[in-house]
Amino acid sequence: MSSSPLSLAVIGGGQLARMMQQAAIGLGVHIRLLAEGPDVSAAQVIPDHFVGDYTDIDDLRRAAEGSGVVTFDHEHVPPEHLRTLESEGHVPRPGPGALIHAQDKITMRTKLRELGVPSPRWSVMASVEDVVAFGLPCVLKTPRGGYDGKGVWLVRCEADAAEALAAEAVLAEELVDFRREISAQVARRPSGESVAYVVVESRQENGVCKEVIAPAPDLAEDLSAQAQQIAFDVAEALDVTGMLAVELFETSDGRLLVNEFAMRPHNTGHWTIDGAETSQFENHLRGVLDLPLGPSTPSARWSVMYNVLGGAVEELEAQVRTVLEAVPEAHIHLYGKAVKPGRKVGHLTVTGDDLEGVLAQARRAGSLLQDG
Amino acid sequence: MSSSPLSLAVIGGGQLARMMQQAAIGLGVHIRLLAEGPDVSAAQVIPDHFVGDYTDIDDLRRAAEGSGVVTFDHEHVPPEHLRTLESEGHVPRPGPGALIHAQDKITMRTKLRELGVPSPRWSVMASVEDVVAFGLPCVLKTPRGGYDGKGVWLVRCEADAAEALAAEAVLAEELVDFRREISAQVARRPSGESVAYVVVESRQENGVCKEVIAPAPDLAEDLSAQAQQIAFDVAEALDVTGMLAVELFETSDGRLLVNEFAMRPHNTGHWTIDGAETSQFENHLRGVLDLPLGPSTPSARWSVMYNVLGGAVEELEAQVRTVLEAVPEAHIHLYGKAVKPGRKVGHLTVTGDDLEGVLAQARRAGSLLQDG
Repeated sequence: MSSSPLSLAVIGGGQLARMMQQAAIGLGVHIRLLAEGPDVSAAQVIPDHFVGDYTDIDDLRRAAEGSGVVTFDHEHVPPEHLRTLESEGHVPRPGPGALIHAQDKITMRTKLRELGVPSPRWSVMASVEDVVAFGLPCVLKTPRGGYDGKGVWLVRCEADAAEALAAEAVLAEELVDFRREISAQVARRPSGESVAYVVVESRQENGVCKEVIAPAPDLAEDLSAQAQQIAFDVAEALDVTGMLAVELFETSDGRLLVNEFAMRPHNTGHWTIDGAETSQFENHLRGVLDLPLGPSTPSARWSVMYNVLGGAVEELEAQVRTVLEAVPEAHIHLYGKAVKPGRKVGHLTVTGDDLEGVLAQARRAGSLLQDG
Repeated sequence: MSSSPLSLAVIGGGQLARMMQQAAIGLGVHIRLLAEGPDVSAAQVIPDHFVGDYTDIDDLRRAAEGSGVVTFDHEHVPPEHLRTLESEGHVPRPGPGALIHAQDKITMRTKLRELGVPSPRWSVMASVEDVVAFGLPCVLKTPRGGYDGKGVWLVRCEADAAEALAAEAVLAEELVDFRREISAQVARRPSGESVAYVVVESRQENGVCKEVIAPAPDLAEDLSAQAQQIAFDVAEALDVTGMLAVELFETSDGRLLVNEFAMRPHNTGHWTIDGAETSQFENHLRGVLDLPLGPSTPSARWSVMYNVLGGAVEELEAQVRTVLEAVPEAHIHLYGKAVKPGRKVGHLTVTGDDLEGVLAQARRAGSLLQDG
C-alpha cells in the first residue's frame, strides 16, 4: 500500500464505513479497516481490511498503524483502549473524552443536564420502588448497547418495571408526548470550525427509523435554529470531531427535548449523499482529518430517504431492476448484507421539488425493494 | 466473494474504473477488475482485482468468469478476443461490433460517412503526394492508439507530412476552423432506451482537455439538439451500450462536425458526478447491466470540471488541505496515481448559479492542486 498523508483507520465494517469509502475514493483518502468478518459490508469495498476484534487493543493497534487518525463505524470501542492508542501517539476522532457520552446514556444525560440542554426528565433506578416513585408510565433504558428500539422498555406497571430492571435497564425517562422526532446534524473540525445541515424529520416504525424527510416539513424557524444550536453546543462542549447527530423530540406543546446523539455519520443523514452539496460521509472524513468542511447546503428542495429493512425480498440486487423500472430516479444504496427480517440492508433517496411526489416515489421504490 | 446477480468484469484499472466503483458500491454491483498492475488507480479501491494483460484471452476469461457482463476502462481490448468471449457465453458491453469504431479512426470515419453524420473531410493517405493532393495544411492522425494530442500531427508542408507518415499516420483530415469543442453524451441500454446529458464545452490545452463547462455557454438551441441527436443516432446505429461520448467541433461558421467518440465514461462527463442527477458512471453501469437509466438532469445551473495534470505538486493528498482552505466547495477527485508532468492525476468540479464565479473557483482550486 502506498503511504499517503491522507490515511485513516476505520473501526467497524458496517454500512457507515462502506459509505465513508465512497467519499474516501474521491478525496484520495486511504482507509484501513478493522472488520468484524471477512464479508461484512465495508470489507467488500475496502481492499486494505483485516478481520479483528474492536475490543482487542492489539487489533486496534494494527488498524491504527501507519494512519494518524482513527475513526469509527460504531461507538462500541472501549474508551480505555482509545486512551491507550492516544498515549501511543494515535489520534482517535472523536476522542475518548467525547465518545464516552455516545456510549453511555447516563453519562450523556448527566452532561446534557450540566450543559442546560433541554432533555426529558430522567433518573437512575435501582428498584421497582424507584420506578414507581419516578412515575408510571415511563421509559426504562439500558445505558449501553441499545439501538433501533432494543434496550428500551415502555413501562406501564410494576411487572413491566421488574422485567426491564432484570434486563439491566436502569435509566428511567419521562414518557414524552411528542409530535414527531427530528434530527440535527453538524460536522466539526478539531479547530472548532463547524457546519450544520438542515434539520430533518425522522419517522420511526417499531422503534426503527423508516423515513427521513429533509428539511423537516413545517418546522418553525425558531425550533430549527434551536435544534441546530443544541447540536453546535454539544459538539463544542464535548469537543466532537467529525459528524454529530442529535435526535430530538418535538413535543406536542412545541418544545424540543434531546433524545440521544451519535458521534459519527448517522442514518438520519444518509439523504446528504444525494441531496446535499457535501455528504455527511465526506464531511465526517474532512472533520476527523482536520480538513476544511464542505458546504452543507441542500442541492434539492426536498429529499426523502427510505430505509430498506430485510423483508420478503431475498435477493436485493435482483430486485434493483424492478425498483428502477418503477422509479428510475431512486438513488439506491445497498449494503451488501445478508437479508434478515428487520435488518437494515440498504436505503434509497429520492429528491425533487414536490414533497408529496417525492415521498410517494420513495415509498413505492422502498417497498418494492423491501417487500417485493 | 458472494455471488451477486449484479456483477461485472471491468477491463483496465484507470480512473474510469475507479469512479465506476463509487457508483457500484451504492448499487450493490460487485466488480471484478483486470488491472495492469497491483497499484493502479482502480486496484486501490476494488478488492476483487488481479493483475493481468488485456491482450491475453486467458486473463480476459479469468476476469469474465462468474460475471455475465464485461465492460471497459479503455478501448484497447482486441476485438477478436471479445468475439471469443461472446462465443463462450460472456457479454462484452459495448460489444466488439460497436467497439471497433472507437478503436480505429478509419473505421469510425467510414461509418460516420455511411450514416451521413457531418464530419471533417478526410481520406486515407499512402504517400506525401497523397497529402499534397489532399491539401495543406491538414491534420494527419494514426488510426489507433492516439489520445490527448498523441498520434496527431498538424501538417503544414511536405516535410511535416513525411514525418507524420513515418510515424504511421495515415488518416488525413481537413484543418477545421472551429470556435470551440463541445461534447454530447448519451447513455444507452441494450433495449434501446437512452438518455442524453446536456451538451458541454470542452477547453483544451496542448491537445489535452483542461476544463469542461456544463452546459456549453451560449450554445444555440438547434446546435445543442443536433449534437444530442448525432449522439443518439451513433449509439443506435452502432448498438452502443453504456455511455457514448461524441466530441464535436463547433465551426466558426456555426456548423457541427464530429471529431471523435468514445464508448465508455468520458473525461467530458466527469462533472456529472457532482452536477447531475445520475452520474455517467452510474448510467454506464446501469446501461451495460441493462438496468433502467437514471435521469441525466443537471442538479446545478453550472458545473465546471478542471483536470489536474501532473505538475509542481508532488504530493496531491497533502495539497488537498490548501485547496479546500481556498475553495471548500470544490469536489475533489484524486486518482491515486503517481504524479508525472502532464499526466491526468485527478479532477475537481465546482457547481453553482454564477458561471464566472464557478469558473474562477474551479481554476483557483485546480491550479493550487496542480501548480501549488
